[in-house]
Formats: sequence, C-alpha cells, structure tokens
Amino acid sequence: MKDYPVTQRNKVKRLPKRGHYDRETVYGILDAGFLCHVGFVMEGQPFVIPTSYGRDGDKVYLHGSSKSRMLTQLEQGFPICLTVTHIDGLVLARSAFHHSINYRSAVLFGAAHLVEGEEKERALFLISENILKGRWDEVRGPNAQEMKATSVLRLDVETASAKIRTGPPGDDEEDYALPIWAGIVPVVQQYGPPVNDPLLTAGIPIPESIKML
Amino acid sequence: MKDYPVTQRNKVKRLPKRGHYDRETVYGILDAGFLCHVGFVMEGQPFVIPTSYGRDGDKVYLHGSSKSRMLTQLEQGFPICLTVTHIDGLVLARSAFHHSINYRSAVLFGAAHLVEGEEKERALFLISENILKGRWDEVRGPNAQEMKATSVLRLDVETASAKIRTGPPGDDEEDYALPIWAGIVPVVQQYGPPVNDPLLTAGIPIPESIKML
Repeated sequence: MKDYPVTQRNKVKRLPKRGHYDRETVYGILDAGFLCHVGFVMEGQPFVIPTSYGRDGDKVYLHGSSKSRMLTQLEQGFPICLTVTHIDGLVLARSAFHHSINYRSAVLFGAAHLVEGEEKERALFLISENILKGRWDEVRGPNAQEMKATSVLRLDVETASAKIRTGPPGDDEEDYALPIWAGIVPVVQQYGPPVNDPLLTAGIPIPESIKML
Repeated sequence: MKDYPVTQRNKVKRLPKRGHYDRETVYGILDAGFLCHVGFVMEGQPFVIPTSYGRDGDKVYLHGSSKSRMLTQLEQGFPICLTVTHIDGLVLARSAFHHSINYRSAVLFGAAHLVEGEEKERALFLISENILKGRWDEVRGPNAQEMKATSVLRLDVETASAKIRTGPPGDDEEDYALPIWAGIVPVVQQYGPPVNDPLLTAGIPIPESIKML
C-alpha cells in the first residue's frame, strides 16, 4: 500500500519523528477503536461531534438519523476532518515540562457523500462489526422503515496522518539525578461484565459476540 | 450557576431529551477526563486535534509548544469547538437499529487567547493537576526557558452543551419477544500498574499522586 501524500494539511509539524503517513499505521489506529471525532464547518464555526464509524480501505462510514444536523451538513461534500485517538499511558517525567501522554492518533481528511442501496447496507454492517464483531448476525436486521430513518455517509479519505508516542519519559540530562519517581502509568480501555437488560426474557444466554470481547 | 445560553450553535437537535445546558453537567464531563478534541478552521478546512486541558470555571486551558500549528492558529481568536467524550458502555438491543452507545459528551464553543505571567503558570498547574492530581508538587517545576518554549491558551467558553445516554436498550415493542440477548457491556478506562522508567535511580518509591489514582 502506498503512503498518503504529505501536504501542508496532514504534515506532522511538531515532533515530526512521531508522524506516520503509511496506511497500515492509520488503519491500525482506526481498527483499534470505534469512536471518532468528526470536525466540520458551518458558517465559519467549527463543530466537533463524537460518533462511531466503520472502515473499508480508504472509505470510512458514518451513520445516524436522517435528520441529524451533522449528517445533513456533511453529505453536502464539504471538507471534513475525522480523528481517532487512543490514550495508552501517562508519561511521568522528573520535570513538569517533560510530562507527556503515550497515545496513538489518526487524523483523516476528505469529503463525505451519502450512500444508498447495497453500499448502505454493507456500511451499517461494517459500523456494527467495528463496535462488536459478530453482533450483526445475532440480531434482527434493519427493516425498510429503519433504513429510511438512517443516513449513511462515506468519507473518501484524501490524505491522513498518524501521530504516536510510546515509551518512557525523556528527561533533561541533569534531571536524572533528582530523587523523583519517573515512569509510565498505563491507561487501558476495558469491558466490564455484561449487564442483562431488565426486560430480558429468562434463559437467554450471553451471546458469542460478547464472549469474544 | 446559570445555564449556558441555548442557540443554534449548541442546541442538541437529535434526541433533545439527551441534551443538557447546565454548567454542573458540562463541568462534570470535563473534570472526568483529560483528553479533548479541539476543532478549528484554516482556510475553510476543519482540523480536529487531540490534546489535554485544564479547567477553571468557564475558562479551559490548553498548552503546547510555542511553535505548535494548532496553538499559533488558535491564539488568533478564531472560533473553536472543544469536545470531551466518555464512552460508558455498548448498548446491545434486539434489533440492529436500536443498538447504541452509552456516553457523556460535552461540546464547548468560544475563542482562545494567549495567556502570560501568573495566569500561564496557574494554567500549567491546572492542566497537570487534571491529568494527575498532586504530581505538580512532586516534580521539578518549569524554568524560564521551558516557560518560553510553552504556549498556553485560554478558551473563554461562550456556550456549551452536554449530551448523555445512560441505561438499557430501548427496543420496539414487538421485538421484546425475540430470543435475542440484550443489555449493556460496560466500557471503562482504567490505569494499569505503574512501570518504572528504565533509568530510574534505585530506591525511589511510587509517589503519592500515583497511589491516589
């Protein structure tokens, strides 16, 4: 796979050694999560809205109510920015200045368009699978009315970058002698034990999709 | 405390019952995290960049390198949007359509300005404390050169909203009879055990700030 083109739009300027432009790295960050923050502009005002997504190569799918302000705005093909961030740890240095966060973030640029028909159905499957693999086949699929009430957009990624920090703190040479603890506190997102719907019919077991989490 | 003014900019349009405009709710969401996504516009192109923050009432502080593209752009006072999102659980319904996410998000609007002097020092303290309370007093504070290399911006929040979903799935009446598991899978962000810096001087214990996590 080719790297994304590097332009003023996606170039990582601060700490360029943390920047990545290859698709494998960007895809890896997207595929490790299901929450993105979508940025768009209305009358000069930026909006940043959290939403879920699914991916198929350089196509990123978003969905929501057909009446959603975000979706009706985005489907007009205006430029958007879609960002996914994972926090991996607190980086605790000997000096306040060198404190940092270990993270992986992907920032994607492109425009979005409404999709219909088979692509819309597949996009909903991809979004669902990205949140909980296997769930789609366990549940009642969408009927015609639900499909109509749902809009799906495809973001065609024009370019993107990733920025990653890993590893221990980097302190100034003279600070290593200070009697101050330094290191990493890992941050992890985890799933708790499933909680039955209070209205669940007795005797229905936990499904495979959840067991695989 | 008064609610934020509700305008076209911050009104929660989809599922308005999930919308909140009171400061207590917005502050609570901000204070429960340390990662925000900042949206700004350059030549019509939106950018969404993850960063940490600290809060003092309706003032939200951001920091970074004095050379940061984001900060040099934001300090010009353009409109920005700052969003904080917490994922609390996967909401697994009997139908694909009623699947959802339990979440708390806060979306803030305003403009940012560079701060200096005492306010800058206090802002750095607030950002640090918001990431790891107590750490500031354990470490070597910033010297003049480090202060110069750091920019701090204050976002004066003009208005904001929160959107919250909690609780079990809501299925269509006729779907409750389906033999499909439904409920919640909680999602939690947790801290792992601290990892010493490989260059840590022997005998330095884990500090109080980490023990309090």
